[in-house]
Amino acid sequence: MSSVPPRRPADRFEAHAAPERDGARTTVIVGGVAGGMSAATRLRRLDEQREIIVLERSREVSFANCGLPYHVSGVIADRDALSLQSPERLAARFRIDARVRHEVVAIDRDARTVTVRRLDDDATTEIAYDELVLSPGAAPRWPAGIATDAPVHALRTLDDLDRLMADLDRVPADGAVVVIGGGFIGLEMADNLYRRGLGVTLVQRGAHLLPSLDEEMAAPIADHLGALGIEVRLGRVTTAVGIDHVVLDDGSRVRADLVIAAIGVTPETALAAAAGLTIGAGGGIAVDALHRTSDPAIFAIGDAAEKRDAIDGSGRLVTLAGLANRHGRAVADTIAGDAAPSRPALGTAIIDAAGLTAASVGWTERVARERGRDVRVVHTHPSSHATYYPGASPLSMKLVIDTADDRILGAQAVGTDGVDKRIDVVATAMSAGLAASALADLELAYAPQYGSAKDPINMLGYVARNLASGDDRVIQWHELDHELATGAVLLDVRAEAQLAEGTIPGALWIPVESLRERHAEFAGRRVVVHCRVGQGAHTAARLLSELGHDVVNLDGGFLTWRDGQRARSLAELPLAA
Amino acid sequence: MSSVPPRRPADRFEAHAAPERDGARTTVIVGGVAGGMSAATRLRRLDEQREIIVLERSREVSFANCGLPYHVSGVIADRDALSLQSPERLAARFRIDARVRHEVVAIDRDARTVTVRRLDDDATTEIAYDELVLSPGAAPRWPAGIATDAPVHALRTLDDLDRLMADLDRVPADGAVVVIGGGFIGLEMADNLYRRGLGVTLVQRGAHLLPSLDEEMAAPIADHLGALGIEVRLGRVTTAVGIDHVVLDDGSRVRADLVIAAIGVTPETALAAAAGLTIGAGGGIAVDALHRTSDPAIFAIGDAAEKRDAIDGSGRLVTLAGLANRHGRAVADTIAGDAAPSRPALGTAIIDAAGLTAASVGWTERVARERGRDVRVVHTHPSSHATYYPGASPLSMKLVIDTADDRILGAQAVGTDGVDKRIDVVATAMSAGLAASALADLELAYAPQYGSAKDPINMLGYVARNLASGDDRVIQWHELDHELATGAVLLDVRAEAQLAEGTIPGALWIPVESLRERHAEFAGRRVVVHCRVGQGAHTAARLLSELGHDVVNLDGGFLTWRDGQRARSLAELPLAA
Repeated sequence: MSSVPPRRPADRFEAHAAPERDGARTTVIVGGVAGGMSAATRLRRLDEQREIIVLERSREVSFANCGLPYHVSGVIADRDALSLQSPERLAARFRIDARVRHEVVAIDRDARTVTVRRLDDDATTEIAYDELVLSPGAAPRWPAGIATDAPVHALRTLDDLDRLMADLDRVPADGAVVVIGGGFIGLEMADNLYRRGLGVTLVQRGAHLLPSLDEEMAAPIADHLGALGIEVRLGRVTTAVGIDHVVLDDGSRVRADLVIAAIGVTPETALAAAAGLTIGAGGGIAVDALHRTSDPAIFAIGDAAEKRDAIDGSGRLVTLAGLANRHGRAVADTIAGDAAPSRPALGTAIIDAAGLTAASVGWTERVARERGRDVRVVHTHPSSHATYYPGASPLSMKLVIDTADDRILGAQAVGTDGVDKRIDVVATAMSAGLAASALADLELAYAPQYGSAKDPINMLGYVARNLASGDDRVIQWHELDHELATGAVLLDVRAEAQLAEGTIPGALWIPVESLRERHAEFAGRRVVVHCRVGQGAHTAARLLSELGHDVVNLDGGFLTWRDGQRARSLAELPLAA
Repeated sequence: MSSVPPRRPADRFEAHAAPERDGARTTVIVGGVAGGMSAATRLRRLDEQREIIVLERSREVSFANCGLPYHVSGVIADRDALSLQSPERLAARFRIDARVRHEVVAIDRDARTVTVRRLDDDATTEIAYDELVLSPGAAPRWPAGIATDAPVHALRTLDDLDRLMADLDRVPADGAVVVIGGGFIGLEMADNLYRRGLGVTLVQRGAHLLPSLDEEMAAPIADHLGALGIEVRLGRVTTAVGIDHVVLDDGSRVRADLVIAAIGVTPETALAAAAGLTIGAGGGIAVDALHRTSDPAIFAIGDAAEKRDAIDGSGRLVTLAGLANRHGRAVADTIAGDAAPSRPALGTAIIDAAGLTAASVGWTERVARERGRDVRVVHTHPSSHATYYPGASPLSMKLVIDTADDRILGAQAVGTDGVDKRIDVVATAMSAGLAASALADLELAYAPQYGSAKDPINMLGYVARNLASGDDRVIQWHELDHELATGAVLLDVRAEAQLAEGTIPGALWIPVESLRERHAEFAGRRVVVHCRVGQGAHTAARLLSELGHDVVNLDGGFLTWRDGQRARSLAELPLAA
C-alpha cells in the first residue's frame, strides 16, 4: 500500500506548473459546479493516484446554481447554504486541486497543455494534461440597447448573486423591477422578486411563457402570475434598457429600478473553437456518446456541450443540472477506463412558478409538428388524488404521441400538487421505451392521499389506447372552428351545474343521461361532443357511435378549449401596462 | 340508428327474471365496487345493446373502500362522499341494471344461470347470463375467542362503516380501542381512531408492522406510532375478545371499548367453488391472463381472484383497488370482443401511517431470499429534495436486486414527503423491465423544491451500478456481527459532529479526511467502513481499496444499522402495556 499525504491548498498553483511527476496521469477540468465537480469527485473515487485539477473562473468552485433565485426572496435565507464545497474541503476529502479565479485562456492540443490566467494577479502559466474536461458552462445573453450604468443583472453564478443582492439593497421597498425573459430563470426571478415585495413586470418575446410548454398549457401560468399582481407582457421585445426604465417594441416604457436579463444563454465555446474543436449545428461543443470532442483527449460536458436528443438523435442544447451531473460522472468513468456511453437526453424539466408547478419531458406538440411527426394528442384534467379525500387539486396534463408507433414523444403537466410525480413517471416510461398505451398498465401506488385507483397516468394510457384502437376519436381545441365551419354540430353533454363555468358558443346542450332519448335531434350531422374535461364526452361519444353517429370528442373538453382561447387572447392582447 | 329508451330503476328485478329478449347478450356481474363497476361501465361504453346486470350484496354498489377509515376520524367528514354511484345514476347514465341487497347464491354453469336472493324479502329468482363476471371480494378474518356481544368490527363496506360509526358513538371520549392487525387496514384504523382522540393499542402477530416491508424498514413506523401515543404490541396474538377487553397470548389484558379486526381477508370463493370452478394454490379463484376461470364463460376479478406475480409468475392474492379497476376494464374489453390480457401484478402499495408514508413494490428482501434468489440490497437515506432548499425531509429507501441479472425485484421507501413519487418511478421501471443500474440514467424533473440533481432514484441506480461492477462491495446490517466476529475492523468515517447521533460498538473512528494519513493503523485487516448513510463510506471504501485494503461498506450506514437493531429489539421486547 502506498501512502499519499493530503495535498495542501497553499502553493497549489506553482506546484502544477511543472511537468508530470511520478508517472501519474493528470486530468484537468475547466469549470467546476455540477458537471466539473461530478467528474472530479467520481474520478478521485476511481483513481487515487491521478492528479485532478479543477480550474474555475468564478470565486466558487461548487455552488447550487438552481438555488440562486431563492436567495433573492429570502426563501433560502443563508447565502452560504448555496456554496456546496470549498477548495479546502475538496483537497482534504478528495485530494482535488481546485483553483478558483483561474481562467483557462488557451488549449495547446499538440502539447496537451492549457494556458491558465490567475485572475487575481493576471499571472499565467501552463498546465499539462493527459485528459482535459471542458465544463465551462454558458454565458447569459443580454438585451439590446443597454445604457451605461443601467442596473441590469443576469444570474448564473454566486458572484452574480452577490452583485445582484448588493444592487437590490438599493432598490426601494416599493420599487419596480423588470424581468426580461419568460423561461425558467425568468419565471423564477419574477417569482422571487415578487416575494421580496417588489413590483414585477415580466417581458416575454414569445407568444407564451415557458417555451417547453405548448401555448394552451402555458396560459394558466400567465393568468396565475397576473392574479398575483405580476404584470406579464407577452410578445414584446425589449429595445432599450435605461438607468430607471426599459423600453419595449410597442413603444411602452416600463419603470425599472433594476432589470433582470433572462433571455437565455450562449454556450461558452470560444475556448474550444479557438482550439479547433468541432462546434455542432446546435451551437454547442460537439461530442459523442462518451462526451468526447473531436479531439479524443478532450471531453466536454454541461451547458457548453451539445446533447443528443432522445427522440430523433439531433444535437441540441439542454441546460439542465441533472444532465451535467450525470455526464460529469460518465466522463470520469470513461477516463478511468470504464467507457460509459450516456443515453440521449429527454430534457425533463420543472419549475415552481409562484406556487403553480409546470413540468415537461420530451417534445411539445409544436416541436413534434414542426419536425413533421403525425401526432395524437391527449389532454386531461384529473385531480392530484382521489377527490373524496380532502386537499385534491386540479392537474392539467398533456401527452404527445407519435401516430406511427404509439411512441410517447412528450408530456406536460401543470398544477399545484403531484406534477413532479406524473412527469417523472412519464420520463421513466419514455426512457424505457414504453408505448403510450402501456401507461394504462402501470401499477402506481394508491391510497387516496396520493393518487387515484386509476391514476392520472393510467388515464392518459387509457385515452391513448382508445385513440390507438379507434374506440375514441378526438379533435384538438384549435381544430374546433374548422369542424363547426364545415357543418358539424357541437354537443355539450355536461351536467347542468357545470354550465356556469362557461359555454362554447353555438353548442347544443344535452346531458349524457338524455342522449338516448334525444339523439335524433342531430341525426345525419357530424357531432363534436364535449364535456368539462373529456371523460363524460367519451361516454357520450361511445354511446352515439354505438347508435350510429359520426362523432368526435373535443380533447380535454371545455377546460382545454378555454385554455387555448386564453392563450390566443393573451398572445394577441398583452395585458395593458 | 336504433333508439333505446333508458331503463327505469323500478321493477328491474322482475324484468330480468324472464329469458333474454331481442337476441341481446346478457352479462351478469356479481359484486360492484372497483372491479365490478369498472367492468360494467366499460362494457356499456363498448356495447350499447348488451344487458348488463350488477348484483351487489351490500347496500352500496359503488363506494370508496379505500376511504372508509378516514370517516372514522372525520378527515372525510361527509359519509356520503364515500358513496360514488347510485343504481339510479348508473341506470340513467349507463343503462346498467344495478341491484343492491341482492346475493347470488348459486351458479348453474350448464344452464348459464345464477340464482339470486333478494335480501330484503328473501325472494329468489334465476337470471340467465352469456358471460358471468365474479367480483365478490373478500371477507374479513376474525380473531379467535370472540365473546357474545363483544364490540368487534371489521371494515370492508359502507354497511360495515355505518355499523362501526354507530358503535363508536357509544365509546366515551377518552375510550380505549384495540386494533388487531398491523397491516394496511390496521394501521389506517389505528391512525384514524387516534385522530378521533381515542386511546389505541395496535396488536400485530408478526415481528414487525406492514409485512410488505422488511423489518428494518418497518421499525421507524412502530417508533413513530409509539411517539404519538399509540401502543404497539408486536409478536402478540389475540386469544380472546371480551365485551370490554382483549386478551393477548402473553396473558396480558388490554382494555377495549371497541375492537377492530384487521388481520386480513379470505377471498370469497364459496360460490365459485360450489360451481366447480378451480381454486388456485394461493386460495383465490384461479384465472388466466384474460381473467377467465376454468369455465370460459365465467370471469373473476378483484380480491376473490388470484393474481399472477410479476416476478415469478406464481398465483397469489393481491387485494388492491388499482388492480381490481384495471382488471374490470380488461374483462369488459375481452367480453366485448377485444381480448385484453392483463400484465402480471407487481403489487405496488402505499400507506399514510399517521403522517409517515410507507410504500413498496414487488418483493421484499425476505421474500426474495425465501424464494431462493441471490440478491443485492441497497439502503439509502436521501433527502426528499435538495437540502439547500427549505423543507427537505429524510427518506429511507431500499432496493432489492437479483444478483443474476441486475433485475429489480422490489423497492421500499419510508418518509414524510416524496415517497409516492419514488416508488411510482421504480414501479414504472420494473414494469418496463429496466435493470437496477438503469435507474442511474433516468432524467427526473429537478428543481430544488422537488428533488435533487442526482435524484434519490438516480442514487439507487449509482449504488446498484457500483455493486454490479464491483466498484463497491457492501454488507448488510444483519451481517455486521459475523464480520466483526471473524476479525474485521469496523471503521467509522463520519465527521465528528455526526457522532452524537450514536455509534456502533467497537468502531474505530477516523474521518474520511484523515484516512490517507492513518490507514496504516488497520493494515492487514479486513475493513468494514461505515458513515451515517453510506455515501461518505463509499468514498472511504474506494480510497482504501485504491490503497490496497480489503474493504466492504456497511450498506445504509449507521441509520440502517440502527433501524435493524431497533427492529430486533422491538420484536424481542414488545412495548410494555
